[in-house]
Amino acid sequence: MAVTGEKLVATAGMDAQPPPLLRRDEDARAAVADLVRRLGAERVLTHPAALFPYTYDASFNSEAHPGRPDCVVLPRDTQDVVTVMQVANRYHVPVVPRGSASAYSGGAVAHYGGIVVALNVLDRIIEIDADNLQVLCQPGVIHANLNDALAKYGMIFPPDPGSSKIASVGGMTANNSSGMRAVKYGPTLHYVLGIEVVLPTGEVVWTGGEGSKALQSVSGLNLTPLFIMSEGTLGVITQLRLRIIPKPESRGLVVARFDSLEDAAEMTRRIFRGGILPAALEIMDRSAIRAVNIFKPDLKLVECAAMLLVEADGSSAVVADTVGRIEQVARELATSVETATNPKEMESLWAGRAALGAASSLVVPGGTRVGMGEDICVPLKDMPATLRKIAEAAEKRQVAVVLYGHIGSGNVHSAIVVHHTPEEIERAKLLTEDIHALALEYRGTTSGEHGIGVVRRDYADAELGAAVTIMRQMQRSLDPNGIMNPGKKLPFADPAVVGT
Amino acid sequence: MAVTGEKLVATAGMDAQPPPLLRRDEDARAAVADLVRRLGAERVLTHPAALFPYTYDASFNSEAHPGRPDCVVLPRDTQDVVTVMQVANRYHVPVVPRGSASAYSGGAVAHYGGIVVALNVLDRIIEIDADNLQVLCQPGVIHANLNDALAKYGMIFPPDPGSSKIASVGGMTANNSSGMRAVKYGPTLHYVLGIEVVLPTGEVVWTGGEGSKALQSVSGLNLTPLFIMSEGTLGVITQLRLRIIPKPESRGLVVARFDSLEDAAEMTRRIFRGGILPAALEIMDRSAIRAVNIFKPDLKLVECAAMLLVEADGSSAVVADTVGRIEQVARELATSVETATNPKEMESLWAGRAALGAASSLVVPGGTRVGMGEDICVPLKDMPATLRKIAEAAEKRQVAVVLYGHIGSGNVHSAIVVHHTPEEIERAKLLTEDIHALALEYRGTTSGEHGIGVVRRDYADAELGAAVTIMRQMQRSLDPNGIMNPGKKLPFADPAVVGT
Repeated sequence: MAVTGEKLVATAGMDAQPPPLLRRDEDARAAVADLVRRLGAERVLTHPAALFPYTYDASFNSEAHPGRPDCVVLPRDTQDVVTVMQVANRYHVPVVPRGSASAYSGGAVAHYGGIVVALNVLDRIIEIDADNLQVLCQPGVIHANLNDALAKYGMIFPPDPGSSKIASVGGMTANNSSGMRAVKYGPTLHYVLGIEVVLPTGEVVWTGGEGSKALQSVSGLNLTPLFIMSEGTLGVITQLRLRIIPKPESRGLVVARFDSLEDAAEMTRRIFRGGILPAALEIMDRSAIRAVNIFKPDLKLVECAAMLLVEADGSSAVVADTVGRIEQVARELATSVETATNPKEMESLWAGRAALGAASSLVVPGGTRVGMGEDICVPLKDMPATLRKIAEAAEKRQVAVVLYGHIGSGNVHSAIVVHHTPEEIERAKLLTEDIHALALEYRGTTSGEHGIGVVRRDYADAELGAAVTIMRQMQRSLDPNGIMNPGKKLPFADPAVVGT
Repeated sequence: MAVTGEKLVATAGMDAQPPPLLRRDEDARAAVADLVRRLGAERVLTHPAALFPYTYDASFNSEAHPGRPDCVVLPRDTQDVVTVMQVANRYHVPVVPRGSASAYSGGAVAHYGGIVVALNVLDRIIEIDADNLQVLCQPGVIHANLNDALAKYGMIFPPDPGSSKIASVGGMTANNSSGMRAVKYGPTLHYVLGIEVVLPTGEVVWTGGEGSKALQSVSGLNLTPLFIMSEGTLGVITQLRLRIIPKPESRGLVVARFDSLEDAAEMTRRIFRGGILPAALEIMDRSAIRAVNIFKPDLKLVECAAMLLVEADGSSAVVADTVGRIEQVARELATSVETATNPKEMESLWAGRAALGAASSLVVPGGTRVGMGEDICVPLKDMPATLRKIAEAAEKRQVAVVLYGHIGSGNVHSAIVVHHTPEEIERAKLLTEDIHALALEYRGTTSGEHGIGVVRRDYADAELGAAVTIMRQMQRSLDPNGIMNPGKKLPFADPAVVGT
């Protein structure tokens, strides 16, 4: 079952270096046998058919090059995760934490074998303490389910990924998900008060205060955020204490259409300068509008260079006022403006944006969207140039691309659509590199929220500079044997240093 | 000038263990001489009169037991701070970063001698990039000055400490300040996109992306927050990239008076349950109202068991609506309600709360407020019991206490007022211990935002449990010689392990 030597897809030169933890087949076999003995066969999946669903995430990379684990552990509790760490350290076998695996980066895939910890089975909301504005839950709780449970208390957990119905809160934390409403509410980071984490050494600690129910504390060093967005490279999150806030009573939406990308960006600028902090601020360019019109012709979206969707939330009076102000800004620049404050109308206007994930594939008959180069962030004022240059690069590479994103945060979600032929995939890889190069040229980032995983790790030196050394030092300090999700997040290090 | 052996005030048993870095006089002399040689005498203060202002912060602890540094360095730039680190490592002398030293915790005081780095001299706003919602600045920039400079762009840096006119943004970051508006806008943590930090080894790294202008990024491990609230124990912050947001157009205020603390807490609960997220939510109990009436009799505050100040912000229409909704909740429970939406009225209503820092001392003729036990957080629903029990403990200890705080975050700012006699100070210490014990009993924290420094460090084990070991491990990894602000934040460790 060893996959250590397998050649992976070379997005961003990811196979340039050897893996940091050189897992050996005989060690892996011994580790699996030990886990079965300690946890019971029903908790340790080993049959190839049972392992198959764990060999990929939502990415093209893992579809093309699955990562087969030696086993999958279905933990009952924190103690089972401790057992996994003990066994992994004993036999020097990788541990790969996995939530819903809805990401595009390969972060939750065992590309180098080892033990996948299936945290989706730990899916209990332990306590909703609405009066103290917090919940205690397990990592496998699905985002939409948490918000459904909170609704009856009039509360929400604000981060709002497009994958709400499948993403787990543990995965959102490990990736620091943002979503559409981050422009107003910030990323997952802002809502994690503390976590229970099983460290690579098997120690269990609570960050943010052991047993604490405080909403703010400056006691100790700030460990919680170190694990947020660590993509399973520093430990396994087994419980989360999350901050919740009152649910806005209502929402309203302004849709504005523009003759140019520049006008759309200028509207964004004027919204902020006008003292307005919208709850969502999304852009779709002409390619995205066309994709939606193919997928949902009933929506009859008007084609234009760019469309902005700007949401306001709050009481109905607040929404009415904010929508009015947004509309006023829109009228200065847009070719047409529509507004909606009743849920049905809004749903219909949002439907286009919501459909984009699926719709993108349709711009190329028989093509598929590949999640590559799909998550750059650039400074807000460089959004128009970035979108234009991505479109130009796509034309040059002869690849279709659908462009949309969270313009309020400078986050571009480009959907590259290709047929699965070696030639087209090669062109998609080149376009991905073009997009990532653009992000760096504009002093942005290759990933705003989707994660680094295996597919973007080799940009770390260019993006982070000398800080990479410090990150490795932190990793080594917490994980002396280099067992945690090796080969993810940072470029491969010398195995002699990181591994065993 | 050595103070290593000096006995400090025993708040929270802080002298139970030996200091971690045993600085020797001859090493300190050699380090100072080396610094003078490298940086020039005009950048290295050594005269006792020049050092005096650096021997204390705003705390009673440092007033009673000043910490005299061996020298104070006035850095010109990042490179000067690197030089300090090189010298400190060479001679094994502590380095104490210092902003405005407006805190109560002794975090910026050189209780164990060594080199104070006076970061208040690095006070330049380097770039306001309003269109990209960020600023680049040095750590010594005063909070109020930053917001004054942002005002002409219609922007604000939202964290809002009571010490706005003296606190530096570097100190706010090192302590993770929250302030009155954290209930809506969150702590400083939420607004730091990246920092340039000189590590204890003298390396300079940018966190959050080298040269990045992205508003969100998940590239690399999340190092930025590790330095936020580290109180100078992990490095020296030399530049900050801060997120800014549109400035709310206007504000409105509701003042509600109650017959009982419980009614005030219930109003808080109903505000949140009603879907309202106010911009500030403050409580003053009877003792605080009395203190203000002594200090500013013109305000003629109505005495009552508790008074809430609830602020809304946004456009004028948003404020009008939100104030109306808050007022409606207030009328269900309050004995009287006042509202204000024009700045002059509001200022007069806020004046009482703003005066509290100074006013508290007046409740005891000839007495002084001592910043001890002044910053606990408890779960929101335990606020009434906590306030009542602090008042009872104060009565038992025969010490005057004035109670107010950020009820929306569960943060109680108790002002203990005593004469500076050994007996009264001893009683104040006992009351401080009572207050901290209450915080832990209610699963809160001994410090919500003011910092741990020397005065609260010995609660770390009780608050943080096994995580303390991990924090020490991080420290040791970044600071092998234990030079950074020793004796702060965490209990003393074995000098053989942390020091040299």
